Amino acid sequence: MTDRPTTPLLDRVHLPADLKGLSDFELERLAAELRAETIAAVSQTGGHLGAGLGVVELTVALHAVFDTPRDKLIWDVSHQCYPHKILTGRRDRIRTLRQKDGLSGFTKRSESPYDPFGAAHSSTSISAALGFKVAADLGGDPGDAIAVIGDGAMSAGMAYEAMNNAGHEGRRLIVILNDNEMSIAPPVGAMSSYLSRLYAGAPFQELKAAAKGAVSLLPEPFREGARRAKDLLKHMAVGGTLFEELGFSYVGPIDGHDMEQLLAVLRTVKERATGPILIHAITKKGKGYAPAESARDKGHGVSKFDMVTGEQKKAPSNAPSYTNVFAETLIKLAETDPRITAVTAAMPDGTGLKKFMERFASRCFDVGIAEQHAVTFSAGMAAGGLRPFCAIYSTFLQRGYDQVVHDVAIQRLPVRFAIDRAGLVGADGATHAGSYDVAYLANLPGFTVMAAADEAELVRMVATAAAHDSGPIAFRFPRGEGVGVEMPETPEPLEIGKGRILREGARVALLSFGARLQEVMAAAEALAAKGIAPTVADARFAKPLDEALILRLAEDHEALITVEEGAVGGFGSHVAQLLAERGVFDHGLKYRSMVLPDIFIDQASPKDMYEVAGLNAEDIEAKVLAALGVGQLSKRA
Amino acid sequence: MTDRPTTPLLDRVHLPADLKGLSDFELERLAAELRAETIAAVSQTGGHLGAGLGVVELTVALHAVFDTPRDKLIWDVSHQCYPHKILTGRRDRIRTLRQKDGLSGFTKRSESPYDPFGAAHSSTSISAALGFKVAADLGGDPGDAIAVIGDGAMSAGMAYEAMNNAGHEGRRLIVILNDNEMSIAPPVGAMSSYLSRLYAGAPFQELKAAAKGAVSLLPEPFREGARRAKDLLKHMAVGGTLFEELGFSYVGPIDGHDMEQLLAVLRTVKERATGPILIHAITKKGKGYAPAESARDKGHGVSKFDMVTGEQKKAPSNAPSYTNVFAETLIKLAETDPRITAVTAAMPDGTGLKKFMERFASRCFDVGIAEQHAVTFSAGMAAGGLRPFCAIYSTFLQRGYDQVVHDVAIQRLPVRFAIDRAGLVGADGATHAGSYDVAYLANLPGFTVMAAADEAELVRMVATAAAHDSGPIAFRFPRGEGVGVEMPETPEPLEIGKGRILREGARVALLSFGARLQEVMAAAEALAAKGIAPTVADARFAKPLDEALILRLAEDHEALITVEEGAVGGFGSHVAQLLAERGVFDHGLKYRSMVLPDIFIDQASPKDMYEVAGLNAEDIEAKVLAALGVGQLSKRA
Repeated sequence: MTDRPTTPLLDRVHLPADLKGLSDFELERLAAELRAETIAAVSQTGGHLGAGLGVVELTVALHAVFDTPRDKLIWDVSHQCYPHKILTGRRDRIRTLRQKDGLSGFTKRSESPYDPFGAAHSSTSISAALGFKVAADLGGDPGDAIAVIGDGAMSAGMAYEAMNNAGHEGRRLIVILNDNEMSIAPPVGAMSSYLSRLYAGAPFQELKAAAKGAVSLLPEPFREGARRAKDLLKHMAVGGTLFEELGFSYVGPIDGHDMEQLLAVLRTVKERATGPILIHAITKKGKGYAPAESARDKGHGVSKFDMVTGEQKKAPSNAPSYTNVFAETLIKLAETDPRITAVTAAMPDGTGLKKFMERFASRCFDVGIAEQHAVTFSAGMAAGGLRPFCAIYSTFLQRGYDQVVHDVAIQRLPVRFAIDRAGLVGADGATHAGSYDVAYLANLPGFTVMAAADEAELVRMVATAAAHDSGPIAFRFPRGEGVGVEMPETPEPLEIGKGRILREGARVALLSFGARLQEVMAAAEALAAKGIAPTVADARFAKPLDEALILRLAEDHEALITVEEGAVGGFGSHVAQLLAERGVFDHGLKYRSMVLPDIFIDQASPKDMYEVAGLNAEDIEAKVLAALGVGQLSKRA
Repeated sequence: MTDRPTTPLLDRVHLPADLKGLSDFELERLAAELRAETIAAVSQTGGHLGAGLGVVELTVALHAVFDTPRDKLIWDVSHQCYPHKILTGRRDRIRTLRQKDGLSGFTKRSESPYDPFGAAHSSTSISAALGFKVAADLGGDPGDAIAVIGDGAMSAGMAYEAMNNAGHEGRRLIVILNDNEMSIAPPVGAMSSYLSRLYAGAPFQELKAAAKGAVSLLPEPFREGARRAKDLLKHMAVGGTLFEELGFSYVGPIDGHDMEQLLAVLRTVKERATGPILIHAITKKGKGYAPAESARDKGHGVSKFDMVTGEQKKAPSNAPSYTNVFAETLIKLAETDPRITAVTAAMPDGTGLKKFMERFASRCFDVGIAEQHAVTFSAGMAAGGLRPFCAIYSTFLQRGYDQVVHDVAIQRLPVRFAIDRAGLVGADGATHAGSYDVAYLANLPGFTVMAAADEAELVRMVATAAAHDSGPIAFRFPRGEGVGVEMPETPEPLEIGKGRILREGARVALLSFGARLQEVMAAAEALAAKGIAPTVADARFAKPLDEALILRLAEDHEALITVEEGAVGGFGSHVAQLLAERGVFDHGLKYRSMVLPDIFIDQASPKDMYEVAGLNAEDIEAKVLAALGVGQLSKRA
C-alpha cells in the first residue's frame, strides 16, 4: 500500500451523480477503491476509522440508488461519514479531516449540501429524517429521507421515540439499521441480544439469493403494485417483529458488504416503499483493514498510523490522563467501600470505567447509549443506600439533564457525577465541547459542583465525592493528560466549599475554576515580570462558593478576574451574583469574568481552540492589563 | 353522597400492614371505600382525579400483597398516588393535597417512607426501580422493586432505555403497565396501537378464569419450581412479544379493576418471579365516578367540584390565558403562512395546540411523551424549509436539552420554542417550576430568547418567532391568565434585541424580563409615592441583550436592578457579564439581580410561591430601598 492508493474509478467520481453511469460491477470495484482511500486518509489524520470502513459498500450503494442531495441521507452519529465525504465533492480535502480549518469529522450542514443534517451525538437521525419527510409532504424541500443508524444507537430512547412516532405517522421513511454488533464498546442491552437472535439462524448465502430474487423474479404485472411488493419484501424477513410492532416494515438481515444484495434491496425499496421501512444490514466494523478488524474496538477512534502495520503514532505523554486518574482513584476507594458503584452509558473505555469493571464486575454498569436511564438508575441506587458514580462526558450529560434536575437534585440524592471532557476537546469540535455543565448544574439547589485544576486535585475531588452523602455532587475535568504534578499518596476529601490561594500578590486577583489554572499561573508569572504580581486562587467549588475567600479577594484588590472553561451562566455568573448581592459593586471593583465566547468553536487542537476562545495565558494577561488600564500596547508583548 | 363517605373498613386501615388481616372480599370492599374517599377529598382540593380512580384496586392489591415500605413501590408520574397516600398514613392530611403546607400532589421522599422515589415527570419509574433492585442485591436496602407505569409514559424513550437495561440485567423486577389507553390526551404512537392489539382479542372473562386458574390449579409439586411457574404465567399471555423481546416475561392483559384477578396474579408473581416481569393491567381512567368517566380527559386534572354533579368550581377570569393567546395567535399566523407547523409532546390541551390541530390537522403533530424526538423532529422540519413551533413546558423541555443544543443551536436551525409554564406554577410544586430555561438557552450561540411581560407581548413574540428564519428562537410565558391589557389588532414582530422603557424616573432603574413586570410596576408606584420614582424597562430579550438600553440605564442611574422569573445564570447573569465586560462596575454601580432563590419551593398559589421567592412587588420595593441605603425600616411599610 502506498500513501496514495491507485483509484482509477474513484478518480472519475467527483459527485454522486457520477455514480449513475457505473455498472453494478464497477460500483463494487469503486467500493474497494473508496475503502483504500479512506484508510490512506485516516492514516494521515487519525480519526474514526472502523465505523467508516464498515459502511463503504452501503455508502456507494446509497449514493448510486438514491438522488442525493435531493434525497436526504442522514448518518446517525456520523463518525462513519468519511467515505460519504470522499464521494460528495470533498475528496480533495479529506486529508484535512479533524484538523484546524479542515473538514469536520462529522457531517455538517455548513460544509456541504450533501450533509442535510449534522450529527455527532447518537440516535438523532430517525427524528431528523421524519422531519425532512414531513417537510417534503407539506411543500418544503422534496425528496426521500433516509436514516442510517447503528445498533448501538438503537439503545437510546430517542431512537425509540422516533420509531414510535414514525410508525404512527405511516409516512414513507427509510431507516437502515447498520448492525455491526458493536457500538463503541461491545454491545449491551436486551435490544442487542434481540438483534443477534434475528440473524442467528439466517446464513448470508440464502439471504443473498432471496434478495436478488426479490427483484429479478418480480413479474412485470406486480411492479405497479406497491402493496404487493411490500408483502414480497416481508417474505424476505426472518424476524424483525419488534420493528413491525412499532409500525415498520422489516427487511433483512442482509449482508451490508455485498454490493449486489445492497443494490437490489435499495432499488426495490426505493421503487416500492409506501410507509416506514427498516432495512437490517449486517456489517463489520473495520471491514477490509486487518489491523482494525482485529482490534478490540475495531479501530473506533485512531491516531495517525502506519498503513502497513496499523501501528498508531501517539505522542509519548509525561503525565497520566485525567480519565485514568479518575478510574484509578475510584478503584482505590472502592477497595474499602463496598457501596461505591459506577455507571457508564456505553463508554467504558472513554470514561476509564473499563478498569473498574474488570476489578468490580458486579458493581459496574454499562447501560448502553442511555444517559437518561443512567442518571435515574444512579438515583435509584443512591436512594437504596449505595454511592453511585455516574460517569458521563459533559456534552452527553445534556441528554440526562431533566433526570439530573427531577430525579437527583429535587430529591437531594447523593449521585456522584464524574464529568469528563469538560471544556474544549480538540478534534471532535463543537459538538463535543463540554461548555455548559457548570451553568446547568450550579443553579440546582443542593448541588455541589467542583472542577479539578490538575490531576492531583482530581484525586481529591473523587474522594470528596465518595464521602459526600448529603446531596448530589459533580466534578468536572478536561480531556487529555494532566500537568505532571505530584499526586497525593492517599485520596483525602476536600472541605466542601473551600478554595485555596496559590500565590499572594496585589492589585489584581485571578480566581480560577478548573483546569485553566496552569494558564492563569503562566499569566501571573508574565505579569509579575512586568511588575504586577497578581494573587492567584483556585476556587475548586462553583457551588457552594467560597464566599469568604471571594469577598476577601474583592476587598483586597483593585481588580478581580474569574477564569473558567465554560460558558456564561456558570462559575463567573455565580461570583457576580454574590458580589452584586453583597453590594461589592456599589463602590467599584474592576470585575471581569473570562468564559467561553458566544460562538461554536470548530475543531483544532485544544490549545488552538482556547486561543480562539481567548482563554490562554496571554489572553488572561491582556485582560488584566486592560482592566487595570495599563494598556493594550502590552498585549502579546 | 355526603362530604365524608362512610368508610368502616378504611377507618381501620392506618398503614398498609393493616391490610394483612383482611380477607380478599374485604379488600374488594375496602377498594370501594377508598374510591369514595378519593373522590370526596379531590372534590375539596382539586387535583388529578381520573388517574387515581383508575388505580384504586391496584393500589389496594399491591399494598396487600407486597410489604411496603420494605418493598419499593414506585408510581410513575405519581399523579395517581392519592389512594396510595390515603392507605399509607396520610389520610388525615389528604384534604390538604396540593395546598400550601399540605401534602404534595405527587410522591415525595421527604413526605413518607412509603414514597421511596418521588416523581412528577413521566417515565422514570423503571430506571429508579432497577436502581433499588441493584442496591438490594449489593447489600443496600432490601426488598422488591415494583414500578407502576402508564401506557402514555411508555412512549418516552427513557422507559425503553430502562427496559432495555433491565432486560439485559435479568434481575427480578416487577413492572406493572397500567394501560388505560389514555395518557393525558388520547394516546398516540405506534406503541399505543400495539398495546391495543394486545388485548383486542381477549375478553376479560376468559382472562379472569385463566388468572384464577394460575394459582388455584397449580399442583403442589410445581410450587417450588419458579421456572415452571414462569412458563405457566406465560401461557396466560395473549401477546406481549415486544416486551418479551426486550427480556421481560409478560403477563396479561388482566382486568385492573378485578380484585380477585389482581390478587391472584400479584401473589403468583411475588412468589415466583425470577427475572424482570411485566404485568399488563387494563384500567379505566376515572373509573367509578361517572362525571370523570364521561369527560373527554377522564378527569385528568380538575378544580374543586360538586361531588353529585361533578361540576367544577373555577373562578371566573377577566383575561384570556397565556396558553390560549399563544394558540390563537399561532392559528392566525398559520392562516396565511403554510410553512407554520406545530409540535406537542402529549400535551395538546396543556399547550393549547388542540385548537391548532382542529384547524390544521395536517400541520400539527402530537408525538407522545417524547420531548427528545419532538425537538429533533422540529429541527428536521426546519431544515426542510418549514417554520415549526415546538410547544413544550419549560420544565419538560429539560428532557430535550441536548437536542436543543446539538440539533438546533449548533446547526442554527430556526425552530421556534413556545415555552409555557415559565416561572413558578402553583399547585404542581417544585417539579413543575419553569426555573432554568433562560439559563440553559441564553448561553447557546445564535439563540434568541424572549419572555413575555403580558399577553399582548406574547402576541408580538409569537409573530416575532414566526418571522425569524435566521436561527433558533424561544419565548417564555407563565401559567395562567394574562393581566387584561389591550391586545394588538394584528400580530406584529418585534425588533430583535430591543427592549422598551415603560416609565422614566431617576436614581434607580428596574429592568424586568418577563411577567414580573406587573410587580415591578407596582413596586415603582409604591416607590414613587415615597419620593423615589424609578425608571422601569422591559428587556423583552435575554438574548441578544439590548446593550444600548442596558448601558444607558446603568449610566443614568445610581442603581440598576434586574428582575426575572428564573434561576441565577439567566437574564441577570447575562446583564452582569455585559456590565463587567464594559467596565461599568469599575467605578461603582448599585447592581442587583433578583432571581429565583436557591431552594426548591413547595406547592402553594403562585403568589405565595413568589412571596417565598422574594419576587413580589414589596420585595422589589425593599430591594430598591436597601440598594439605595434608604433603610430596611421602610420594608413592607
